[in-house]
Amino acid sequence: MPFVSIRITRDGVTAEQKAQVIREVTETLERVLHKPPEWTHVVIEEIDTDNWGFGGVTTTEMRAGRVPTPGAKPQSGG
Amino acid sequence: MPFVSIRITRDGVTAEQKAQVIREVTETLERVLHKPPEWTHVVIEEIDTDNWGFGGVTTTEMRAGRVPTPGAKPQSGG
Amino acid sequence: MPFVSIRITRDGVTAEQKAQVIREVTETLERVLHKPPEWTHVVIEEIDTDNWGFGGVTTTEMRAGRVPTPGAKPQSGG
Amino acid sequence: MPFVSIRITRDGVTAEQKAQVIREVTETLERVLHKPPEWTHVVIEEIDTDNWGFGGVTTTEMRAGRVPTPGAKPQSGG
Amino acid sequence: MPFVSIRITRDGVTAEQKAQVIREVTETLERVLHKPPEWTHVVIEEIDTDNWGFGGVTTTEMRAGRVPTPGAKPQSGG
Amino acid sequence: MPFVSIRITRDGVTAEQKAQVIREVTETLERVLHKPPEWTHVVIEEIDTDNWGFGGVTTTEMRAGRVPTPGAKPQSGG
Repeated sequence: MPFVSIRITRDGVTAEQKAQVIREVTETLERVLHKPPEWTHVVIEEIDTDNWGFGGVTTTEMRAGRVPTPGAKPQSGG
Repeated sequence: MPFVSIRITRDGVTAEQKAQVIREVTETLERVLHKPPEWTHVVIEEIDTDNWGFGGVTTTEMRAGRVPTPGAKPQSGG
Repeated sequence: MPFVSIRITRDGVTAEQKAQVIREVTETLERVLHKPPEWTHVVIEEIDTDNWGFGGVTTTEMRAGRVPTPGAKPQSGG
Repeated sequence: MPFVSIRITRDGVTAEQKAQVIREVTETLERVLHKPPEWTHVVIEEIDTDNWGFGGVTTTEMRAGRVPTPGAKPQSGG
Repeated sequence: MPFVSIRITRDGVTAEQKAQVIREVTETLERVLHKPPEWTHVVIEEIDTDNWGFGGVTTTEMRAGRVPTPGAKPQSGG
Repeated sequence: MPFVSIRITRDGVTAEQKAQVIREVTETLERVLHKPPEWTHVVIEEIDTDNWGFGGVTTTEMRAGRVPTPGAKPQSGG
């Protein structure tokens, strides 16, 4: 009975891309975990870039270059 | 302090239907689990049919009849 | 294809209570929204009282009486 | 690797307010839990008032004054 | 910045299976949606069978054969 | 009515740290968004390191040094 929620930024992903993601994730769960596809639900939740924060800033701000791109290598934590 | 998230496909559910679902779910949690309604939140999250996959295909594709309706009886798994 | 997540505090809810909540919520979605029970998943997620905050304090603290019970009537907001 | 989801009602929150919430929550997780900001994602999910139930009624109904404001002090439960 | 939550029943899935699911889902999001793996988080949330309802009954009950296996073909809905 | 879910890896976070995170996040939502604390719920969900994937590998694998630490600067995407 898997339920998969995939949150991504709203960025013009096409219906074809969504269908492919759904098909592949369902197939992975069937092949690796033996979950019947009939029981697998996959939901793609698209989030406005103003509403997604990463490294302490919104994606809108990050893309506008007003802040450094996250990605410095942290040594520890998690 | 229950928090209930109900994800459904976006299908023209009316405000009256939503209000009834919220009323009934809150009442169930009060009667069965003794949760004060004042502490119960219920959120209905409507998902576009392109974004909801089931049986490996999107709901849009399934309704268009381009694929078989899921529902074959699996023997095991879960 | 509803997917329902019910988060509650971990408080000794019995398997019978859980089964009744699942049965009633599924029935509500069938009767009010015409969702086939075969497509409805309901998940109950139990959260330790140290991990659930309400009114700015954990449920553990609130029950120990170290803080006032939330519930003062706010005038606005949401 | 924190992932934070903040669900609020859709109420005209500005991009500046969202950015400030994201900045402060990320900072709290860094200072208190030592999580590198580069690994922290914060998502703000805005919910229509018809879709958010509280005390058994929708926020739309509650604000219209058709029902009492929740907030009576419960004696127990949770 | 994808965030993926995969909810499954708690069923003795091994660390190797989990690692493979994480690897494949991350790869799918990179290849199909061009998401950098460095920004993709995948969380597997295992749910006790008493806490997962499907077709109106818990998975525990369903496996014990006390109820019919869901899967009759619905004609409509969703 | 905010509902906040904070997912972190299970890493020995103390009850005091959890209480402080809950207090600060609730305060941020009150000060910035004018949300009454009485209506704010914050849930901390701790995830085993085997179950949290990042950069295509589990946190367990990453910490064991069997794979490079994510964090290379991507040029685009999101």
